[in-house]
Amino acid sequence: MNIGLDMMGGDFAPIEAVKGVKQYLLEQNFEGLSLILFGDEPQLTALLIEYDVPKDKYKVVATTQIIDMNEHPTKALKEKTNSSISVGFQYLATGKIDAFISAGNTGAMLVGAMFSLKTVEGVLRPTISSVIPKQDGSTGLLLDVGLNADCKPEQLNQFAVMGSVFSKYIFGVDDPKVGLINVGEEEGKGNILAQAAYPLLKENSAINFVGNVEGRDVFNDKADVMVCEGFTGNVILKLAESVYDIAQNQKVDNPYLNRFNFEIYGGTPVLGVEKPVIIGHGISHATAFSNMVDVAVKMVNTDVLGKVKEAIQKI
Amino acid sequence: MNIGLDMMGGDFAPIEAVKGVKQYLLEQNFEGLSLILFGDEPQLTALLIEYDVPKDKYKVVATTQIIDMNEHPTKALKEKTNSSISVGFQYLATGKIDAFISAGNTGAMLVGAMFSLKTVEGVLRPTISSVIPKQDGSTGLLLDVGLNADCKPEQLNQFAVMGSVFSKYIFGVDDPKVGLINVGEEEGKGNILAQAAYPLLKENSAINFVGNVEGRDVFNDKADVMVCEGFTGNVILKLAESVYDIAQNQKVDNPYLNRFNFEIYGGTPVLGVEKPVIIGHGISHATAFSNMVDVAVKMVNTDVLGKVKEAIQKI
Repeated sequence: MNIGLDMMGGDFAPIEAVKGVKQYLLEQNFEGLSLILFGDEPQLTALLIEYDVPKDKYKVVATTQIIDMNEHPTKALKEKTNSSISVGFQYLATGKIDAFISAGNTGAMLVGAMFSLKTVEGVLRPTISSVIPKQDGSTGLLLDVGLNADCKPEQLNQFAVMGSVFSKYIFGVDDPKVGLINVGEEEGKGNILAQAAYPLLKENSAINFVGNVEGRDVFNDKADVMVCEGFTGNVILKLAESVYDIAQNQKVDNPYLNRFNFEIYGGTPVLGVEKPVIIGHGISHATAFSNMVDVAVKMVNTDVLGKVKEAIQKI
Repeated sequence: MNIGLDMMGGDFAPIEAVKGVKQYLLEQNFEGLSLILFGDEPQLTALLIEYDVPKDKYKVVATTQIIDMNEHPTKALKEKTNSSISVGFQYLATGKIDAFISAGNTGAMLVGAMFSLKTVEGVLRPTISSVIPKQDGSTGLLLDVGLNADCKPEQLNQFAVMGSVFSKYIFGVDDPKVGLINVGEEEGKGNILAQAAYPLLKENSAINFVGNVEGRDVFNDKADVMVCEGFTGNVILKLAESVYDIAQNQKVDNPYLNRFNFEIYGGTPVLGVEKPVIIGHGISHATAFSNMVDVAVKMVNTDVLGKVKEAIQKI
């Protein structure tokens, strides 16, 4: 298995990316894994030696350009054809790697995923999700968190299917409970979109729909998979991220609130494209990179995107 | 000034309502105030004597019915014409009281406000807001928080005006900064609604528009007044409420997180109707009732709804 990693993406690249690779190999080295590292060769080689990363586990692919965090995604991908992100997607599209990871320019990663990869047959639009730390210790999934600011009810129904498959195969949740983010508990509540999505979710036999979930239910055990359009989802995610910052500012050290440090989850996978793409937070440190490799390995090993494809076609 | 209070609404009525009245009169008694208390006369009279509430400050209006928390609002208001909520709105509509407060059935309060009172001239739709505790110690305002799940851009622009007036006159914020809840910082970001609302807010000379605010900005000082449709606003509010519950569950005792106890803010005023209506949380205790009286007194004293009317007509 070849996992591709953009070593130049993120605020602390390439050093934290190198440390992340080292951490992954130390902690949860997967036997058949080869890491394909995209980036500035002299810089990377020096760091990989410095951090004593086993040579048989990686291969450096030299790239000469970097897409900065604030560059226009489409323009940058078109012009910087030898950037770590562009080359990574070329490798992914042509099968030279099985998954691609970057903590770089999120827009460029999304555009790269959408335009260099095929959308899974039957999927209306790919989606991005976020891990949600649940109070009972389990791991929830919220989607969409920003790729689709306006949605049709059918999209929410597909998010439910894709999220359920991901929750099952990557988080190991058996028969994940799916909730529709809404403003009240009862059927019939909500805006036009939520009202229209509810019956689709209710009739969808591919998922375990448990009804509406409210803002107060995001962190409880009412649902494992929570679906909404990307506007509300993005606001929820960024608000949840800020809860961790608040706890830090307030010098509150609490095991549950510490799980709001979204860096520990690594990154967010793009669901609905044919190959695994994982987008990391700009502030990713070693643990985030290590976790992204871990999720990528799991996604390849479980063929979760193949499972998404099967499930979508059953709706 | 006559402030009307539904003594039978809320999970802990009438005893907490009586205690709240007592608390208000002890702590911030306003000279010209007369409290008009709607509810079961024998029960109230006994409690008012028991809690030693000064007789010259209140008058009990006997009502014989109660609208329960789970009753259908429109049906209940129509059938229970002698309920504390119905009679309260009759008093408000006919000028016998200057403001009406209840921690009872929220739907019935909204229906009552919308149908027994006139909408302020020029207001497309009334709105409900929520106090947001800011990290810098100041008090933010978020609106709409659930009355209008789907909105037009013009409504968001009006929420901005109504919220600014409320923030200025009730919270004492000078020239409140208005932010549009969105998924990114830059103009042009967002769903169709946010994209269309941005230019209206930018051109609105009646407000101090500071641009987009994201989920991570809800609790920081980027904006004093934050506007969105009621779907996202309701999810934000209920999520914020759950942060307090989480802190309690986790036994975290932190002064800032304690401000997420929304009960301390009393209730949410309906903005855009011609007279002050304040809706309390079902779980309201004495402090919440006391604070609701305080806000009602301020709303009448400052003629905040008259100011809303003037401001709306300037858009």
